[in-house]
Amino acid sequence: MEYHHKVQYYETDKMGITHHANYVHWMEEARIAFLDELGYGYDALEAMGIGSPVMSVDCRYKAPTTFPDDVTVTVWVERSNGVRLRLGYEMKKADGTTVCQAHSEHCFVSPEGKLLRLQNACPGLCGALAALVEPR
Amino acid sequence: MEYHHKVQYYETDKMGITHHANYVHWMEEARIAFLDELGYGYDALEAMGIGSPVMSVDCRYKAPTTFPDDVTVTVWVERSNGVRLRLGYEMKKADGTTVCQAHSEHCFVSPEGKLLRLQNACPGLCGALAALVEPR
Amino acid sequence: MEYHHKVQYYETDKMGITHHANYVHWMEEARIAFLDELGYGYDALEAMGIGSPVMSVDCRYKAPTTFPDDVTVTVWVERSNGVRLRLGYEMKKADGTTVCQAHSEHCFVSPEGKLLRLQNACPGLCGALAALVEPR
Amino acid sequence: MEYHHKVQYYETDKMGITHHANYVHWMEEARIAFLDELGYGYDALEAMGIGSPVMSVDCRYKAPTTFPDDVTVTVWVERSNGVRLRLGYEMKKADGTTVCQAHSEHCFVSPEGKLLRLQNACPGLCGALAALVEPR
Repeated sequence: MEYHHKVQYYETDKMGITHHANYVHWMEEARIAFLDELGYGYDALEAMGIGSPVMSVDCRYKAPTTFPDDVTVTVWVERSNGVRLRLGYEMKKADGTTVCQAHSEHCFVSPEGKLLRLQNACPGLCGALAALVEPR
Repeated sequence: MEYHHKVQYYETDKMGITHHANYVHWMEEARIAFLDELGYGYDALEAMGIGSPVMSVDCRYKAPTTFPDDVTVTVWVERSNGVRLRLGYEMKKADGTTVCQAHSEHCFVSPEGKLLRLQNACPGLCGALAALVEPR
Repeated sequence: MEYHHKVQYYETDKMGITHHANYVHWMEEARIAFLDELGYGYDALEAMGIGSPVMSVDCRYKAPTTFPDDVTVTVWVERSNGVRLRLGYEMKKADGTTVCQAHSEHCFVSPEGKLLRLQNACPGLCGALAALVEPR
Repeated sequence: MEYHHKVQYYETDKMGITHHANYVHWMEEARIAFLDELGYGYDALEAMGIGSPVMSVDCRYKAPTTFPDDVTVTVWVERSNGVRLRLGYEMKKADGTTVCQAHSEHCFVSPEGKLLRLQNACPGLCGALAALVEPR
């Protein structure tokens, strides 16, 4: 899945480039678009009583971006076993330069914070994610 | 009440100065510290079932700030009638330069979003605010 | 000019709605798209040595938004005399509800911070803005 | 070095907890306070022509925080060879619970983006960091 983000002026810092924390926002934007495309909007999951907190993130910054760059974020499923989901992200500028490589890990929880097995909580999403596992 | 905020690197933009949206964050920080000082922490108000959404904000930017400036935010009660609260804010740099003059307006709501009269919902805070009204 | 913004998860707060400071970000996004459409990208203006700092903002919040609402921001020129620019903004949800009414004021400055007259600094943009003045 | 951050309302999201991207901001706050304590304020470094971009970050979220938690961030030097700096971070709530474990890596660059050896660019800081290396 490819997600497009235009770097905003308010995302830059006094170094003249995008502040590094914003890439974590873009990962969320891309992840939510990815779930949308699978037919499981994050708002629909929350309405079903499924939250998906972030357990970890890592980002390697390879080249800077700045306003008004267009950044393409590719998302894929690195691992998914219904309890823990690991996603990969590759972000590129319009000229094809890789600007950031990243990962995030997620679990699934009830509104009360209890860990859920996606097999039980949402078998459709569980199957869709499993079918897409593609370690890189 | 005087609240101190140190401008963070991530609050600057590529113009080399604090991005203007952050002053709205500092107003919230100062407002929450102001309520704390009155003995009504915002978390305690929420625990009592009282939310205080922002109905309006305005900011006039008089001079720029940047990392790592220390900004002092003075907060005062412009108007308070138990239904609507209007606060004033004056922000100064360490050298005494006024950098921003601002206002915010708030109402009070139940967890279901129903408008509350502070006289009934929290008479103590209602009285404390009324005693502090100081139009400038 | 109509600009579209999808409310992001990271733009919400624990009240369950969009944090009010984000509307100031959306005003900037819409303003930059508006300049783009006029043929004067903000990055091109900066490359010409023209900055346009924000002198004031005001927002009246009429109804909440939340993730994943689609918000349409309409921007128009309230006043423009080449020294000071005042823009108006109306933001609506997909169902047509007005969620925020806002304004921003701007001047024009050189890289050294000297005030510029847009008539001299960029007559094309000055004329384009003047032709669009539409007080509401 | 211990740095204190009070979680702000605007740092929470609709899950009711601190949005995970903010921890990357707190790492920056703590890192800058750490450099200050060493006598090398980040603004002073920039004034000397030394920037220190972030090459990577990773965060493992162990427990949630929310407004108005007080978070203590401990920072230490994991590795430092004058070309690359690796910092470690441990974040705890007031009750001692670890909420986040994190790392960041940095290089040093001139205003033109040329890689610098800290031995040459700022021997004092280079020595101070080397003396503090403490892998955990």
